[in-house]
Formats: sequence, structure tokens, C-alpha cells
Amino acid sequence: MAIAIIGTGITKFGELWDKNWEDLVFESSTEAVKNANIDFEDINSCYVGNMNLSRFEGQDHIAPRITEILGINKVIRTEAACASSSIALKLASDEIELSSFKGENKIALVVGFEKMTDRIVGTTTGILAGASHFDTEIINGATFPGLYALLAARYLHETEATEEDLHAVGIKNHKNGILNEKAMFRKEINLEDFRGDIANPLKLFDCSPISDGSASLVLTTEKYAKELGVEFVKLENIEISTSSISLAKRPDLLILDSAKRAAESAYKKADIKPKNIDLIEVHDCFTINEILCLEAAGFAKRGKGYEIIRSLLPYENINKREAPIPYLVDGKEVFVNTSGGLKAKGHPVGATGVAQVVEVVNQLLGRCGKRNVNPEVGATLNIGGTGGTATFSVLRK
Amino acid sequence: MAIAIIGTGITKFGELWDKNWEDLVFESSTEAVKNANIDFEDINSCYVGNMNLSRFEGQDHIAPRITEILGINKVIRTEAACASSSIALKLASDEIELSSFKGENKIALVVGFEKMTDRIVGTTTGILAGASHFDTEIINGATFPGLYALLAARYLHETEATEEDLHAVGIKNHKNGILNEKAMFRKEINLEDFRGDIANPLKLFDCSPISDGSASLVLTTEKYAKELGVEFVKLENIEISTSSISLAKRPDLLILDSAKRAAESAYKKADIKPKNIDLIEVHDCFTINEILCLEAAGFAKRGKGYEIIRSLLPYENINKREAPIPYLVDGKEVFVNTSGGLKAKGHPVGATGVAQVVEVVNQLLGRCGKRNVNPEVGATLNIGGTGGTATFSVLRK
Repeated sequence: MAIAIIGTGITKFGELWDKNWEDLVFESSTEAVKNANIDFEDINSCYVGNMNLSRFEGQDHIAPRITEILGINKVIRTEAACASSSIALKLASDEIELSSFKGENKIALVVGFEKMTDRIVGTTTGILAGASHFDTEIINGATFPGLYALLAARYLHETEATEEDLHAVGIKNHKNGILNEKAMFRKEINLEDFRGDIANPLKLFDCSPISDGSASLVLTTEKYAKELGVEFVKLENIEISTSSISLAKRPDLLILDSAKRAAESAYKKADIKPKNIDLIEVHDCFTINEILCLEAAGFAKRGKGYEIIRSLLPYENINKREAPIPYLVDGKEVFVNTSGGLKAKGHPVGATGVAQVVEVVNQLLGRCGKRNVNPEVGATLNIGGTGGTATFSVLRK
Repeated sequence: MAIAIIGTGITKFGELWDKNWEDLVFESSTEAVKNANIDFEDINSCYVGNMNLSRFEGQDHIAPRITEILGINKVIRTEAACASSSIALKLASDEIELSSFKGENKIALVVGFEKMTDRIVGTTTGILAGASHFDTEIINGATFPGLYALLAARYLHETEATEEDLHAVGIKNHKNGILNEKAMFRKEINLEDFRGDIANPLKLFDCSPISDGSASLVLTTEKYAKELGVEFVKLENIEISTSSISLAKRPDLLILDSAKRAAESAYKKADIKPKNIDLIEVHDCFTINEILCLEAAGFAKRGKGYEIIRSLLPYENINKREAPIPYLVDGKEVFVNTSGGLKAKGHPVGATGVAQVVEVVNQLLGRCGKRNVNPEVGATLNIGGTGGTATFSVLRK
């Protein structure tokens, strides 16, 4: 049974020095409630995903703070690093589905947010490292650029892929981001901009930025959405899978096994195949991860995802093309990260999962203006850490 | 529709210097799985409640670490301060109920844990303060003993209650704790032990301790529990409510409005009244809160809960009585915190919600040895922070 997404809201992503996290949560949620044509009083429960307000700002126990901001008396917080708000979406969809079986018509708000620029102590990279394995990674000084650099190095070693294939992902996503007014970066980058190692072989522009932002969704049953008479998108399902958190325990470094399991389960339940997907937002925290995600989502076999990137060749011409720019997968155009992805749109970690769904919903409803690609079926693939958590959702108009 | 709790597990609570948090999670979960007569492979999902492994030990993204420890590939983490694992239980029960409607027979593991003695930086009191309001409480130096002292002072000011009434709660719970081999403190305390303010009017023995511990539950559908042929307890329901996190925004300092709403909703759905409850585990993080919880749970009106405590008079004789010691509520014996409560059993914050349910389940199944009180209907009332989050569950054999 499908869930109806009847409202979406998203703040601009970026270094938002003039706003605090409460402002962001209020802004995206008010937008979502408004375009769902409901009031906050109509909402039965709120699921909020946030990674680390605790270490960024000293505030745990976020749920009752959301109650203060939005006036909702049932708020639940989840945490799964960069997948935090995808988990919130899953739990909200479970509650709505349950309410459908019970003949109730509940409405849930899902919020994801992160305010990464206001940290009170420590470094942002250090705080984010908490999403990796403390005893084998963090304590040895590993950071996320470093961990993904290991994956990239292994990928380049085992396959025919080159650093330029990685960079092409960033160039494409920056080009797409220009059309997204909520994106953090709205400017072209070129191959020659990829200079200076952040963590070999990853350059600065292979990495997504530190960002602030919030995104919100309003969910209800399909039946009630029709009664309300609002436009909606069907969330066919969202599947979750967890794996080992540490790269050292991963059976195969080039396979995001959690993402593969989540995708396969979601395809099966939605009765579709990868070839049915017209549009997907994937977790390009680092350019290598867009490639690994394409493989996990079934668009290419292990170690062959870079061939999809090469459908953009010659890379010098990417910025001469009209955005949004699709890949060619077995002759079919597939749009990946029309929003600009984490790379250009920004990556306020707790907001990312919901923000991906906001993009796909708005694409399916034709609300993306110049970057609309008129998809029939959309999907999102979100990742926590280096793949310890993965979620895959299938959406359809 | 009731959920079946078919397995319980709990570690000893205390300062467990020779164990790490993984040991504790494994120990309580193995015990729960064993007495549910299933294997870890039979479990579909795991919901884990933890407040702050992030700030105690630098580890976020707990879910995939649990996957590494227990081998379960769908793990979800929730956080709601001291109510963290109660939220986990609510979400697990939603998933099991949903699986029942779908004709599936899912099995979920619920784990709550906290390792508070291994902190890598900061003070435990400072870390716990994250559960209050950053901008109006934390930043002004408020701590939980201080915040609950405000509530206690107001209670003593507005009512006829005395400090001795508060102390009697601690004396009773310590006496009960002697019979609980998993309790942190197993010794009597007396009125003369309540000396020296921690935060006026609260003395040291009005406060629950800093503890390590883990507790686990195995849930499935009632139908499947019967097929498995295991003993089980019915979780009639568990209700959640959130309120303002800050005391300054609470309409009435003496009313835990979130707890009141959760209790009223749970009673209504279970079609019972407070007088039907034989046994309840409540959140006595500070002795004043057992009184506020008794009022919120409907055993007494606002400001009258201390009269229930006075059913223990003369307080000098509490330790001469045989434990577990009941209160008299309108002439009926009601057992509160037979486990020893947070006060004597210990309060590893993330574990507390599940630990409360473990006690009630074992009481209902007659597995509590000398402290068994043969209840028909049991309940738990858990609190996050100073009442920002509250959960109320009703259980029955």
C-alpha cells in the first residue's frame, strides 16, 4: 500500500549564519504544511532526523524542542548519521500505513535538519567522524574524506576508472545545481578546477560541502490525500538496511552491501526493475559514492559504474550541454541528482534524506521549473557513514 | 491488538568498569533471545535506544555497530534522553502491529543501553544536561539535580508535603532493590542518611545514580507467540507524548503534562482506569519525580501524591517491613518500583525505558522470585528530561 506525500518544504542550503536551527526547521515545515494545504493542528505526529545537534550545539532530546517550535505533541527523533531523516521517513510511513489498516487517517510530518556552522566545540570533521567506527577508524584519526579516499583508491586500482571519471560526477552535479535555487553552489566547475588532494585521490571538488539546512515532508494515506483533493506522490516503499559500520569488516570494499539489499528489497516490493527508474537522487557525499550508488542501485555491475559516467564524455563538453544532464544507461536517459546532489546542493547531513525525496516528489509533480525532467518513476538512495546504513525509496506519481 | 513480549534480558546495573557497551548490549540481548526460545537469525529488525554514546564515547551511528555485534541487518536508533528506549519499544510495537495486519509474523528486538562511566571528555552531569533546554537552561549552568530541585521546591511550597515524604520514596525503593540481584544498590537507607544538599531541597539519596547497563526485549505478534508456544506478556499499548522541554514554558510546574496525556491515552486504549493497575514502574530519577509520576498516572490529584507516600508512615518503620513494599491507594495495594526503581536499581539512561518493562513483564510472568507480587495488570511511566518526553505502557498477562 502506497503512502501519499502531500507536502514538501526545503530551505536554501548553505552557510546560513543569520539563521538558527529552529528557524530552519520552522521554515521548511511551514512550507510543507502550506503546500499540503493543512494546518499544523492537523498533524498527528512528527518524525525528526538529525545527526548531531548534541555535539554541534550541546542540545540532545530534540523531540520536545520541536514540540515547542511546531506545537506537535508527538515527536520522535531518529539518528543514523547522514541517513537520519531517511529513517524518520521510514518510521512515519510505517505509522501512516498502520493507521490506514486501522481505518484512521493520520497525518505525519517528517523533518530532517542539520546546523553545522554553529558548532560550540570541536571540529566539524571530527564530529562527523562519529559516524564511522570508533575503535578502528576514529581513534586512528580517520575522517570521512580519508575513508572515502580509501574506497576511491581501491576503485581506481581494481577497475579501469580514472580520476577524471570521478570529477565528471562533480561537474555534472554542479551544472545541475545551477538550476536549483535552493542549492548551496550554483556555478560551473571544470576539470582543471580539480587540483590539490584533500585525501588522495579525492580533490576538493570531489567532496560535498559542510552546510546548514532543513527539509520537510507531509505524509498521509492515499485515501485521505484524495479526500483532501491535494496533488500527491505515492511513496511505494522505503527500505532500510544496515551493514558493518567499519570498512575493515566489509566483505568487499567496492560493494555497498546495505544499499544493494535495500534497493533489491524496494524494487521487489514495488515490482519494478532498475530500468524503470527515470530519476534518482543518490548520496554523492564524495564523487566516488555516486558511482558506488549507481552500482548498488542495479544500474551497473560491480566495478562497472564508471562506464555510466563515461556516457557524459567528452567531459570538457559537460558544461556546454543544457542541464539537467542525464546519464545514458543501456541506451536510456537516467537523471541522477537533478537537484545538484549533495555535491552542489549541499549536505546538511540530517536533512539530506528528506531533501532527496523533496526533489523527487517535486520532479514527479512537475514543480521543478527549468530542471524538470518529467519522470514517471523516481527513487532515492541514501547512505549513512560509509554504508553502515542505507535506505532506498521508490516514488511514483 | 496486543503485542506479545516473549523475551526479556537485563544486565546488572552499576559501575561496570570491566565491560564495554558492546558487552552489555550482547549480554542483555542474548538473554532475551534465549528466553524467547529463538535465535538471532529469526529477528527481522532491531530498535535501539541510547541517549549519548556520541558524547560519552565519540560514537554516533550506533545502528550499524549493533549490526556488527548481533548480526541483524535492520537496526534503527532512537534518542529521547532518558526515554530513548521507550521510544524504541513504541516503534518496534508499531512494526509488529503492522506486520500482523499484513499477515506476516515479524520478530523485533528492542535494546536500551547506556555506558556512562567510560566518558572520553566532559562531565557526566554536563552531558546529561543536553536533555534540557540549551538556550534557557544549559547555557545558564542548569543541571538535572538543579532542575528537579526547582520542581521539588515548588512542590514543597505549594503543598503540605515535607522533605521526609521525598526521602520515604528513596527508602522504599532501596528496600525493594535489595531483592533485585540486577540492582546497583542493595542496601537499606534511613531518614538520617539524607544529609547534605545536592541541590536544595534534594539530598544525595534523593538522586538516582550514574550507571552502566543494558536491557532487551523480544516482541512478536500474539498469534505467532502462541504458535511458538512460549510464555508471553501482552503489551496492550505504549503511548508517547512530548511537551515543552524547558520548565520555563511549562504551564504548571507541578503537572507532567506529557505524562498525563500519555497515561490518559494508554488507559483509554486499554479500556482500564488507574485503579486497575497493580504494579507500575515509574521514573524516580529524583524522589520528587515518583510523586509527580503518581499524580500524572492518575493515582492522585495534582499536589496530592505525597498523601500516597504517607501510606508508608511511620517512615522509621519502612525498613522493618518485608519488601516489596506497596503503597495504599484508596485502600488498594499498589506496588511502585518493585525493581528498586532508578533510585536503587540504577539509571543507565538509555536502558531505563526497556528495563522498566523487563521488570513488569517478569512480575506478570512470576519470574521475580522473592519480590514477585502476582499482579494482573502492570504499567510503566517513563520520562525524558524534566518531562519533555513521556511514555506510558500497559501490560497484562
